[in-house]
Amino acid sequence: MIKTLKIEPLTKEAFADFGDVIESVGRDHFMINSGSTERYHNVGEVQLDEDGQGIISIFRAKMLEYPLQVKMLERHPFGSQSFIPLFGHEFLLVVAPVGDGTMNIDPATVRCFRANARQGVNYHRNVWHHPIMALRDDDEFLVVDRTGPGNNCDEFFFDESIQMTVELD
Amino acid sequence: MIKTLKIEPLTKEAFADFGDVIESVGRDHFMINSGSTERYHNVGEVQLDEDGQGIISIFRAKMLEYPLQVKMLERHPFGSQSFIPLFGHEFLLVVAPVGDGTMNIDPATVRCFRANARQGVNYHRNVWHHPIMALRDDDEFLVVDRTGPGNNCDEFFFDESIQMTVELD
Repeated sequence: MIKTLKIEPLTKEAFADFGDVIESVGRDHFMINSGSTERYHNVGEVQLDEDGQGIISIFRAKMLEYPLQVKMLERHPFGSQSFIPLFGHEFLLVVAPVGDGTMNIDPATVRCFRANARQGVNYHRNVWHHPIMALRDDDEFLVVDRTGPGNNCDEFFFDESIQMTVELD
Repeated sequence: MIKTLKIEPLTKEAFADFGDVIESVGRDHFMINSGSTERYHNVGEVQLDEDGQGIISIFRAKMLEYPLQVKMLERHPFGSQSFIPLFGHEFLLVVAPVGDGTMNIDPATVRCFRANARQGVNYHRNVWHHPIMALRDDDEFLVVDRTGPGNNCDEFFFDESIQMTVELD
């Protein structure tokens, strides 16, 4: 199987099987702080297991080489993981749904999204995703994820006969 | 008591009694994603009570009027609350330490900090703080805090004889 992944715009609806889109644009809010602040409430939930602890980290990422060959995806079985751009730059995502929970990914289910400069994402527990795909060097992302006991990262490597590529415009 | 609060630069050390400074500059990291990403790990912890759930929200804030009279501070007894600038703009903080846990704030302990454009904060549980003090209208902040049962917001109003002011340069 050889294919170039279509880069889709990131929307709440299209991303629903994978996680939350963290954005204010087009979302409901309510007023707080005596009317000086709009609260876009709970646009993403921090998923944790019983022994887990939510933590806030920053990832500073180099841009990968394109065309990018998608050789592997990873998942976090014990918690969600969010990526929110801190420098206001677009980035890409490659994801696959949870599936049947086994260590297997159907290549036909792999999708690619482009987050605009005002969008972050929150991958739900067990959603397969590619390591961060910044579109410039030393871009920074806020990450909210889980720490605690156990191995919280599974990696799945595709068979070499499967060639999935992401090409920039 | 009448005083103008001194605006201090935000540093990890100066802010230690109030919470975490969320930043990459000057912090340790380790490499992940085959060396393409620096992880500035656990720069803030999501504090929750037993029944709490961590959530991600966005606050869009108007700039308050300056000189600002600090009439009240609030605290969240069941969890931490973080504010990370999404548009890369400075903002101000006014805080007071947890103290003895009662509904009382010693005005002498109130401090004001200026976060630079690459700094966020994570207020620890029960730390007194002013509602968000953006320095321009419609500035956006990522907020990680707690939802769940119970009243998670106490407000303390200073006696009118206490006049604390924040003046911009």
